[in-house]
Amino acid sequence: MTRVHIDSTFDQDLEQIRELMLAMGGRVEEAITLSAKALEERDEDLAQNVVEGDHAVDRLEEEIDQNVVRLLALRQPQAGDLRAVIAVMKMAADLERLGDYAKNMAKRVAVLSAGPQIEGAGSSIRRQARQVGQMLKDMLDAFARLDVDLAQDVIHRDVEVDHMTNALFREFITHMMEDPRNISACLHYTFIAKNVERMGDLVTGGAEQVIFLATGERVGDRPKGDSTATIDMKPE
Amino acid sequence: MTRVHIDSTFDQDLEQIRELMLAMGGRVEEAITLSAKALEERDEDLAQNVVEGDHAVDRLEEEIDQNVVRLLALRQPQAGDLRAVIAVMKMAADLERLGDYAKNMAKRVAVLSAGPQIEGAGSSIRRQARQVGQMLKDMLDAFARLDVDLAQDVIHRDVEVDHMTNALFREFITHMMEDPRNISACLHYTFIAKNVERMGDLVTGGAEQVIFLATGERVGDRPKGDSTATIDMKPE
Repeated sequence: MTRVHIDSTFDQDLEQIRELMLAMGGRVEEAITLSAKALEERDEDLAQNVVEGDHAVDRLEEEIDQNVVRLLALRQPQAGDLRAVIAVMKMAADLERLGDYAKNMAKRVAVLSAGPQIEGAGSSIRRQARQVGQMLKDMLDAFARLDVDLAQDVIHRDVEVDHMTNALFREFITHMMEDPRNISACLHYTFIAKNVERMGDLVTGGAEQVIFLATGERVGDRPKGDSTATIDMKPE
Repeated sequence: MTRVHIDSTFDQDLEQIRELMLAMGGRVEEAITLSAKALEERDEDLAQNVVEGDHAVDRLEEEIDQNVVRLLALRQPQAGDLRAVIAVMKMAADLERLGDYAKNMAKRVAVLSAGPQIEGAGSSIRRQARQVGQMLKDMLDAFARLDVDLAQDVIHRDVEVDHMTNALFREFITHMMEDPRNISACLHYTFIAKNVERMGDLVTGGAEQVIFLATGERVGDRPKGDSTATIDMKPE
């Protein structure tokens, strides 16, 4: 009987942590959507909201960490349970970084809104961010119901993000070459595109954790998506 | 007697994990030094060594994680001990990211070596990387002997890295404006400088963990060092 009692309490505690994770993920997803919207629409107030909202994301990570520590101390889970708890903690750390990248995008809105219009830049970034936001949403759904197929699908879609990023780089370089006055703004856009690409990598990492949680198996070494390090960036 | 036995076994296990961490940190420190050297000297073989050497860093992180899971399962540490174990696991994750940034720098050596010479870029990046490498070395020393003063010193020195990064950005923008043929190379250098700045942030985070381990107290919210998001990047 004691054993049953311990198990179900453990499951309840873990469920609580999972719910915090999903709440955190929902907030991060919203931050990605809104920062990209603020960027395209040059909406500095909205950008400021995203920057300020990141505190709530950070606090959720702290809350998850505290719950994890408490759960480890009180329930002393073994083997698979222990690995599940640690996987969730790592996913929360990745979500926190995703939130930081969204915040970073929002922080760039003010200086970009004051600078020259770079044709198509805002809408292209928003399309790239939408792709990553959808991947994050699906990754969280996959996490909620331990859906391996959906997690695999998320992983495959990251390649599209990498292609979009490379196309964006070429686009921004073209604008820089056309007019040196575009250089400062295009540098900011390039950093943003790179950060959105990194968000895709983090979401992919989360999807791999979901597969690990569901199957106990590690997904093999995937290409890290930093192909932009090796390409000779050329204009369109 | 049992209690004493458990404690000392815990300490031995933790000591082993700490030694793995220090070994991992030493390798990352070397990767930073060598990738910056390879960049300045256009040494593609050396760069390739750094890229391949990153696997060893990744494996050390996995080994640390496995040891942490085993220690948690077998010793079921409480309160302070538990937090110490989790802090070490987080530091290992940060070291892994530092290694990734060094690898990313190394990956850019081939394409940069094939492109135009950007005057002073290689040596400036190397100086910036040397600063971060020294901070990492001191952070690891601080971790090894739980030296709060040294950890504080590391945190303060990160401001210099931020200043160096801003100066580098201005330098690269100037080169881009002077000659559009420099744009592609300067974009790579800009990404490298940004990544070295992020390495500084990660080392600072590690120093904060050291202070937490030594005192049990969290260091207050520090400025995140991403001031480059809000500046209007201008040439020199």
